[in-house]
Amino acid sequence: MTREKIYLFDTTLRDGQQTPGIDFSVEDKIAIASMLDEFGLDYIEGGYPGANPTDTAFFSEKRTQSASFVAFGMTKRAGVSASNDPGLATLLQAKSDAICFVAKAWDYHVRVALGCSNEENLECIAESVKAAVAAGKEAMVDCEHFFDGYKANPAYAVACARTAYEAGARWVVLCDTNGGTQPSEIRAIVEAVIADGVPGTALGIHAHNDTGQAVANSLAAVDAGVRQIQGTLNGIGERCGNANLVTLIPTLALKDSYNVRFETAIDAARLEGLTGLAHAFDELLNRSPDHQAPYVGASAFATKAGIHASALLKDPRTYEHVPPETVGNFRKVMVSDQGGKANFINALKRRGIEVAKDDPKLDMLISIVKERESSGYAYEGADASFELLARRTLGTIPEFFSIDGFRVMVERRFDSHGRVKIVSEAVVKMIIDGHTIMSVAEGDGPVNALDLALRKDFGKYQEEIADLVLADFKVRILNGGTEAITRVLVESNDSHGVRWWTVGVSENIIDASFQALMDSVVYKLMKNRQMAGKIAAE
Amino acid sequence: MTREKIYLFDTTLRDGQQTPGIDFSVEDKIAIASMLDEFGLDYIEGGYPGANPTDTAFFSEKRTQSASFVAFGMTKRAGVSASNDPGLATLLQAKSDAICFVAKAWDYHVRVALGCSNEENLECIAESVKAAVAAGKEAMVDCEHFFDGYKANPAYAVACARTAYEAGARWVVLCDTNGGTQPSEIRAIVEAVIADGVPGTALGIHAHNDTGQAVANSLAAVDAGVRQIQGTLNGIGERCGNANLVTLIPTLALKDSYNVRFETAIDAARLEGLTGLAHAFDELLNRSPDHQAPYVGASAFATKAGIHASALLKDPRTYEHVPPETVGNFRKVMVSDQGGKANFINALKRRGIEVAKDDPKLDMLISIVKERESSGYAYEGADASFELLARRTLGTIPEFFSIDGFRVMVERRFDSHGRVKIVSEAVVKMIIDGHTIMSVAEGDGPVNALDLALRKDFGKYQEEIADLVLADFKVRILNGGTEAITRVLVESNDSHGVRWWTVGVSENIIDASFQALMDSVVYKLMKNRQMAGKIAAE
Repeated sequence: MTREKIYLFDTTLRDGQQTPGIDFSVEDKIAIASMLDEFGLDYIEGGYPGANPTDTAFFSEKRTQSASFVAFGMTKRAGVSASNDPGLATLLQAKSDAICFVAKAWDYHVRVALGCSNEENLECIAESVKAAVAAGKEAMVDCEHFFDGYKANPAYAVACARTAYEAGARWVVLCDTNGGTQPSEIRAIVEAVIADGVPGTALGIHAHNDTGQAVANSLAAVDAGVRQIQGTLNGIGERCGNANLVTLIPTLALKDSYNVRFETAIDAARLEGLTGLAHAFDELLNRSPDHQAPYVGASAFATKAGIHASALLKDPRTYEHVPPETVGNFRKVMVSDQGGKANFINALKRRGIEVAKDDPKLDMLISIVKERESSGYAYEGADASFELLARRTLGTIPEFFSIDGFRVMVERRFDSHGRVKIVSEAVVKMIIDGHTIMSVAEGDGPVNALDLALRKDFGKYQEEIADLVLADFKVRILNGGTEAITRVLVESNDSHGVRWWTVGVSENIIDASFQALMDSVVYKLMKNRQMAGKIAAE
Repeated sequence: MTREKIYLFDTTLRDGQQTPGIDFSVEDKIAIASMLDEFGLDYIEGGYPGANPTDTAFFSEKRTQSASFVAFGMTKRAGVSASNDPGLATLLQAKSDAICFVAKAWDYHVRVALGCSNEENLECIAESVKAAVAAGKEAMVDCEHFFDGYKANPAYAVACARTAYEAGARWVVLCDTNGGTQPSEIRAIVEAVIADGVPGTALGIHAHNDTGQAVANSLAAVDAGVRQIQGTLNGIGERCGNANLVTLIPTLALKDSYNVRFETAIDAARLEGLTGLAHAFDELLNRSPDHQAPYVGASAFATKAGIHASALLKDPRTYEHVPPETVGNFRKVMVSDQGGKANFINALKRRGIEVAKDDPKLDMLISIVKERESSGYAYEGADASFELLARRTLGTIPEFFSIDGFRVMVERRFDSHGRVKIVSEAVVKMIIDGHTIMSVAEGDGPVNALDLALRKDFGKYQEEIADLVLADFKVRILNGGTEAITRVLVESNDSHGVRWWTVGVSENIIDASFQALMDSVVYKLMKNRQMAGKIAAE
């Protein structure tokens, strides 16, 4: 049996940008578009060219390889022809494959917000769609306030949708702009629109989470006949967010209610990248992933000690609604110390470290990790620091060098021209084979100065670490206030294409950064030796 | 027309306790039970007496005034009589008004987890319910795995529900224990159970959020006929959490789909306490409230978009699915990169700053804000910095003092005992009325040292800023890598209960922090003068 395709339309870069606290730079948008494109979504809406410098710059090039790249914008204004509307001209010139027009579908808003007649609004929709099609673009229309508009004036809301469709729009997207519509209403209204002449194969749904039902509303619309879903990564978006694609995609793929009749571009192999995608996006936003997120959260397949635990061990499948590995997540049973131990042994094994279950050093490592995590370390995100800690505790890592101390100074003063000047300087004193090496450097900030000073002279190791690149640096303040603890995560890479993360924690941000930088260097030295050992053995 | 009552059953203290990272003490439980009781819920499930010392102690007294206080526990074991089961005896002796028994309703689990026959399990359900009723308690039965069990063996799942009902259970609760059931399945199965003889007025729903649809599943069950909903505060619970009562309650109360036919114990007056309840609960858990939470989140009624903001000001109701004040929340129109002129005028108005639409200083302010936001400032999270910038640009703020410079030093070295020692010291040089004041201080980290030095001697302003408290400090690294820009947000408050946020941006974290600290002090001095002005005018 052929399954019908549900098209996935991502609006993380457009509607997601409306999230309070989120402002994407052009570089952010490029990085996110490429994550989405690789993952395999059908449409990636990048923003509103012409509305602000970021979006205009972003649309100066096509940013996707396989996904259709979509520009968002308003329909032409009433009273001017399509060819004389500068906003429309900017949209048509943007380097996109498709244009998604936003159009009012609630007569009240046409009057109050646009100040034109109902008929003029329909004409704006039709002419804009035609202009996009004439320019060789796929056209879509987001019918704003569709459901509230339908309740107020069903005939006019449907007229907007039908006008878009008849003018040549590939997709007419029904938007629950205020987010308050209930699933049963969505279902009934979508059915009515289809009965009124717009086929479900040309309809999309754009839901918001204001009653916690954006996912349910999207699925109710699919049940009723729409074949495109608009949503965002991790459900970001205005107010309470948009429909969460990270939740919708596995439900469509794994649940009998959907996968028997429907398919999406995300096949089983791609689906295994879902947890990674969701976490990478949170990393980019520099926020902690939601542990309780459906499918991808750290707790989504976690069971705490209790009446389920022993039965879960007998047969995990009967306690899990889907197998965690299908979405790239994993099972976590927090049953007992024994269970915790098995988790650790596995984690070490994945890093090539073999340890016996009854080795007392293993207990020591577990208690060190537990103690450090309770004081703010997060080894989940810092594999290299975890591996170093494990190897230090279980086996031996040579002491390559030792640090006698460092000093960092930041000064703000006026220069001889009366301009504010900020100087950051760092001094590092280290000992290698009994010799003291002192280095000093200035940097763009205290951490940059420290990094430059640390790596300026590494004695006999200098050449080995020449290709070490500090790729990213993240700071998180834990438990707030003046007694804040700072956690610093550093991402490094080298010319072999290896990437690793290290962590430092301190009440002093400079010291936390220093710990993470040190771990990064030691990890690199250790890996160099492992690699040399492998080559020698071959 | 009489409306049917939907009973609200809170399981925050029982199923919510399964949340990874949450462990309630007896004192926590007492505090939460009293919050829930005051708010007006029908049932409060407190835990499992006999399962652990906390729950046993909690049930040594009745903990509610008006809500029914519910103890949770297993049905009697197979092979012993109800009067000879020590677990059941403990439950019956607990100081509760009602007992909620958990019973297996999936034949596979009866066999694998309980190891008894299907008939023995039915007998356990019936006898346990009868024992509770005989002890003068209201009896309910949570049918675990009901929906998965129904799919595997519908006749047996229904037999479990009917046995409980016929034995005298006031409520038979259908549980989606693994959380993977879809709303359409919930609806169909609930309808089948009612058709098979258990009336909807005796049925409850217990949904989990594993596909992000716990709220939708609960409402689908209500649509199909159940009249009790089990859920938790802010949706805490095992894995992805339970149905969120904080989302369900206002939907039942405010949406036509429900409030025409149904009522709950939460009337309009109580509903206004909802946001307060949700935030107080997060406070007790020591975690920041979810800004995007439906109804009660700080962003739930926040608008950022320029195109919506101007229409929103004309008629807020058409852009809000419910009035924010009905749930004790409030409207927020934010300043941001995307905001238009109307948005700005309104943002200024709320801060008591009147400006004409055609005032050239307004255009200047808008362009300064846009330029600063593109360089990394985020004014939507820093109201006080925005107000200062606006007043500086539009009107005048006295120059209270000027900063000649500062110097911050962080040193890591060994002390005389060979222990690592980290010292942070800051020197600040400021000028007030032509006099230079230099202060030095040591702190827990460089920013703390700077804050202490800055406020150590403020000359004639010292007393005025004595009650300024630095409450929180957040760091965000923008655009990563070594050329990172750092944004610092500082939250301050004072003895008048005023709270304000300020922002600083720099490639140097120390300088960014300094800007935010300075803005905080200047804001405080400005507000003191405004307040003094008001008092003088009265």
